[in-house]
Amino acid sequence: MSLATSRMVPMANAIRALSMDAVQAANSGHPGMPMGMADVATVLWSEYLKHDPKAPGWADRDRFVLSAGHGSMLIYSLLHLSGYERPTMEDIRNFRQIGSPCAGHPENFLLDGVESTTGPLGQGLAMSVGMAMAERHLNATFGDEIVDHRTWVIAGDGCLMEGINHEAIGLAGHLKLGRLTVFWDDNNITIDGTTDLSTSENIKARYEATGWHVVSCDGHDFDDIRRAIDEAVADERPSLIACKTVIGKGAPNKQGTSATHGAPLGDDEITAARGVLGWESAPFEIPEEVLSDWRGTADDGARAHSEWQMRLDGYAQKAEFQRRMAGELPKDFSLDKYIKGLIDQPQKIATRKASEMALAEINTGLPETIGGSADLTGSNNTKAGGIGPFTADDYSGRYVYYGIREFGMAAAMNGMALHGGVIPYGGTFLVFTDYCRAAIRLSALQQARVVYVMTHDSIGLGEDGPTHQPIEHVQSLRMMPNLLVMRPADAVETAECWDIALRQPDRPTVLALSRQNLPQMRTHQLSENMTGRGGYRLKAAQAARRVILIATGSELHVAMECAEKLEADGIGADVVSMVCTQLFDEQDEAYRADILPDVSPDEVLRVSIEAGTTFGWDRYTMTNGLRIGIDRFGASAPAEDLFEKFGLTADAIVPQIMNKLNA
Amino acid sequence: MSLATSRMVPMANAIRALSMDAVQAANSGHPGMPMGMADVATVLWSEYLKHDPKAPGWADRDRFVLSAGHGSMLIYSLLHLSGYERPTMEDIRNFRQIGSPCAGHPENFLLDGVESTTGPLGQGLAMSVGMAMAERHLNATFGDEIVDHRTWVIAGDGCLMEGINHEAIGLAGHLKLGRLTVFWDDNNITIDGTTDLSTSENIKARYEATGWHVVSCDGHDFDDIRRAIDEAVADERPSLIACKTVIGKGAPNKQGTSATHGAPLGDDEITAARGVLGWESAPFEIPEEVLSDWRGTADDGARAHSEWQMRLDGYAQKAEFQRRMAGELPKDFSLDKYIKGLIDQPQKIATRKASEMALAEINTGLPETIGGSADLTGSNNTKAGGIGPFTADDYSGRYVYYGIREFGMAAAMNGMALHGGVIPYGGTFLVFTDYCRAAIRLSALQQARVVYVMTHDSIGLGEDGPTHQPIEHVQSLRMMPNLLVMRPADAVETAECWDIALRQPDRPTVLALSRQNLPQMRTHQLSENMTGRGGYRLKAAQAARRVILIATGSELHVAMECAEKLEADGIGADVVSMVCTQLFDEQDEAYRADILPDVSPDEVLRVSIEAGTTFGWDRYTMTNGLRIGIDRFGASAPAEDLFEKFGLTADAIVPQIMNKLNA
Repeated sequence: MSLATSRMVPMANAIRALSMDAVQAANSGHPGMPMGMADVATVLWSEYLKHDPKAPGWADRDRFVLSAGHGSMLIYSLLHLSGYERPTMEDIRNFRQIGSPCAGHPENFLLDGVESTTGPLGQGLAMSVGMAMAERHLNATFGDEIVDHRTWVIAGDGCLMEGINHEAIGLAGHLKLGRLTVFWDDNNITIDGTTDLSTSENIKARYEATGWHVVSCDGHDFDDIRRAIDEAVADERPSLIACKTVIGKGAPNKQGTSATHGAPLGDDEITAARGVLGWESAPFEIPEEVLSDWRGTADDGARAHSEWQMRLDGYAQKAEFQRRMAGELPKDFSLDKYIKGLIDQPQKIATRKASEMALAEINTGLPETIGGSADLTGSNNTKAGGIGPFTADDYSGRYVYYGIREFGMAAAMNGMALHGGVIPYGGTFLVFTDYCRAAIRLSALQQARVVYVMTHDSIGLGEDGPTHQPIEHVQSLRMMPNLLVMRPADAVETAECWDIALRQPDRPTVLALSRQNLPQMRTHQLSENMTGRGGYRLKAAQAARRVILIATGSELHVAMECAEKLEADGIGADVVSMVCTQLFDEQDEAYRADILPDVSPDEVLRVSIEAGTTFGWDRYTMTNGLRIGIDRFGASAPAEDLFEKFGLTADAIVPQIMNKLNA
Repeated sequence: MSLATSRMVPMANAIRALSMDAVQAANSGHPGMPMGMADVATVLWSEYLKHDPKAPGWADRDRFVLSAGHGSMLIYSLLHLSGYERPTMEDIRNFRQIGSPCAGHPENFLLDGVESTTGPLGQGLAMSVGMAMAERHLNATFGDEIVDHRTWVIAGDGCLMEGINHEAIGLAGHLKLGRLTVFWDDNNITIDGTTDLSTSENIKARYEATGWHVVSCDGHDFDDIRRAIDEAVADERPSLIACKTVIGKGAPNKQGTSATHGAPLGDDEITAARGVLGWESAPFEIPEEVLSDWRGTADDGARAHSEWQMRLDGYAQKAEFQRRMAGELPKDFSLDKYIKGLIDQPQKIATRKASEMALAEINTGLPETIGGSADLTGSNNTKAGGIGPFTADDYSGRYVYYGIREFGMAAAMNGMALHGGVIPYGGTFLVFTDYCRAAIRLSALQQARVVYVMTHDSIGLGEDGPTHQPIEHVQSLRMMPNLLVMRPADAVETAECWDIALRQPDRPTVLALSRQNLPQMRTHQLSENMTGRGGYRLKAAQAARRVILIATGSELHVAMECAEKLEADGIGADVVSMVCTQLFDEQDEAYRADILPDVSPDEVLRVSIEAGTTFGWDRYTMTNGLRIGIDRFGASAPAEDLFEKFGLTADAIVPQIMNKLNA
């Protein structure tokens, strides 16, 4: 139901007033975007967006993503005005202050109704593609009665200029995600000035070339905005709505310029804007009738929610739907039997192959997984368990051919995980985490369960050479907060890693997997999923312990070979598999001290072995330990030649240990 | 001069034969692309590419970039056939073997004629944009007689799908780089299968929307290829030539499929291909008349080179041109006087501001710098010294408005540095190194002098919150081989950092600079550029030394405050500014031992202070030292509140030091 323009105007101006006042109070922030897009947002939120402010977690709600996250006061205003419990007006008064959920950029973990953390440009839109994918998949699985919602995005010129935009819209266009609508805040302004400083692109033509429907509107004309949205909704393709807007609309002396983008307007300009807008309320006060009109917009959503609830209550698969949306694994899901089988029949395979085998089990037992690869399916071994392709013709498929779009894939996976109801995993080469690192960081920050299947994890990939050989990657990912990095050594550890990764409701995992075959190290039953400990003693010293070898992944067997040689010389050596440093660090002190006892290096020498940078391994070897690794770029040659060249063999390592012991 | 088709065919087939034989011998590699693009490459290299195989470093040569670097046998074949000294046929026989310059992917540091390291998809094309920018800039500076060459690129579907493609072609289209021509190997095949698995894009329309000229040709018809190139050359816009090709052309049973992409064809198929191609020579043998035809193609280039040399010899600015192309700074360039002025007049400013001040000196003294920012000019403080914009109307400008294209900017800077004659620097927020990390890695691998001006380097940026606050970034960049990471503490160190960065002919530098103002720590003259030592003692203990505080950037003054408090309690404390760990590690042992003496922590406790991850600081604090930092994501609030919240104040740190000393 549309309200008269005379009532819509003050509703939009409420957003403008809150935005300029909050930025002014914080003395930092971005008033230009919220003021420019206030009219579009008012139409969208009051007439189209399906949501229930009293039940922000409603599974079938529309998703709204503010991709231009710097305009965060737009969403804080919308949430408050439409009746969400938070942010309160006090929260908004404390915009950008310590402890306020109204952070500088919207954070999904601080406020209900903020579907994703945005600010790193382009990623909000790219995540929304994943949300729209998850919606179509769940629709195909559970039907129109249960899953039938839209994804709406507000994006700025920055979101459209970023490279990830190309990947995201290419994927969305190919998959014909018609329930995805992007409002482009077409205001001709970037931070540095007018857009023609840096771009001459015909954005509409580019979107059309990529399979999108494009429609334009005057972003300050309510009827024209409605017309454009109606056209977008009617088209079966994803839609870009180019909204011609004036940045900072309402600020008479600064509107239309980059001066409104990222700085407070100043008291004088705010006073002038109040005059232009006819806004007479004090800062942080909303006239009762305006608030009442806003609150009334939630009625349709509440009704739709209760009707949906009735449908769900009568739905045969209600429990399964709720389980998936809650992100809980089936109670009977277990890899234990599979792992026992692996232990009983040791084999020499690459851990990427072991991952494929584990996935065959997982994808059979967990209908919620959605796999994929950035055009390296046969190399990442990500298609397993008989899952079929997810395509525009069949959204029930569970395997996504992401194309050569690592960043787009990672962001789409974030969107899927945030949407809920699915568990996404996807692969590329580990070295190309550099291409999607900004999205991996958002997985971690947003506490999203995404599993990155990163194969070809060292010089062990061989001939492709230094551009493809990770050196610093594993360690550099280990230092990212809230991210698990796992580097399993064999088929057993790989299965254990998968089991742990799937059971992390609030953090992503990077699996670093080998291209080359590796001997199986775990050949006898242990009492628990040892990988869950992060690091564990694979072999205890036989002679008096003088050495602890700490290794990961493809170097674990090298460590075992070193230990054998040392023991042959009467030198006792433990071997520790440090499959996930983060999980090891989370163990209690007693456990850690048992594995890595705090004794002087003169008594027990600690040695790390990993085919990557030695930077940071001091943490486990202690200063006087020995760190074996590669502190330069790799080279192109067969893998075995490279392990020899870089000294990652028992023959090269043992003499260094002996030297150190005898020093 | 065009040869008859009957002579062109075997020239192209020589590429096919070498490619399939070398991949077979290596038992790994990518025959499909070289075989598919052999005809196009033969026309380009024999009739259009301006180069002199006997003088690969000729400044005015055309640049050729194989963006689809996995097809490396294409360029190795071309270099060998057209008469470069390397690769020899023996090098080609040893394709992908240890020590061969014919690495799996082309490496610019292994072979003359390989202008850039490629393989990470999309970046070759993006670097070529930078090469074309450098050419136009030097042309504007030195004139048509001295600088007048083209940039040619071969790219595959992968290069066009990657997000960076959007950034690169957007920049090239906006800047009207008409001397840039991209051959798109339009073969409908990616690794996973046909392109329609993952894309529905109208690539030609997208390029046209971005300001490019687009022309198509049959990639196996020599005349049609010539026609398309002629059209491209005639158009003032950058050109995309869509070359319809058959991947693996010539392999009768596998051509046109992804089976030829990344694996040897096998002996049977190679035999069959020899039949189809009419190629009767043994592996690694080229018939004399074919080699002779190939070698003859270099004559035009040799003539052009000698004519150019005569023009240069008569050119008034010859010495200056040669200096810039050699990458040597002017002999009289020095920041010493400027730095002395800073020391004499201490000021409290942000290091990003200090960088701007240094740049005002540098851009005045070094005409070869080309600066820019990814739409954060006013935040990165990168426009200084009166340099004007580099635009399609004025290529003599030295400031690039890169737009919101961090990755495209970094790759373009790599291209400029590889082209030579210019020293590029560019800025964004430090956290967005994640967006361009893959290009930073290629700066390092390619030994390119690029300076990254990365501001807003910690929680000190305040209100923008965790998406914008680097935590792991500085450390994660420090572990990248051949990259200098510098985090200066004040205006003096910032100027010293710039001086060092500019004097690195073969490695890139990341400058991590503060948003917030910092007190000047260096207020008295020291005997040398102390930053060149990487770490140095800013303050020596007054009381008996019990503590060494090691800090960087904005935490150096915190360390000084800690030292003051400790000294007041009779505890002697050194303060070490660790402005660049890599340079410190390169100092001789005596110097390092003087700064960080190898004594037990019971005698001297080492404490690191940096507003980022503590991961890896064990390296300098030793195991029993104290590491002060932030091992979680940041938060949104004013900077001072955040430093307090995260315990990065002297009041919070000193008690921890006392506890440790008294333990």
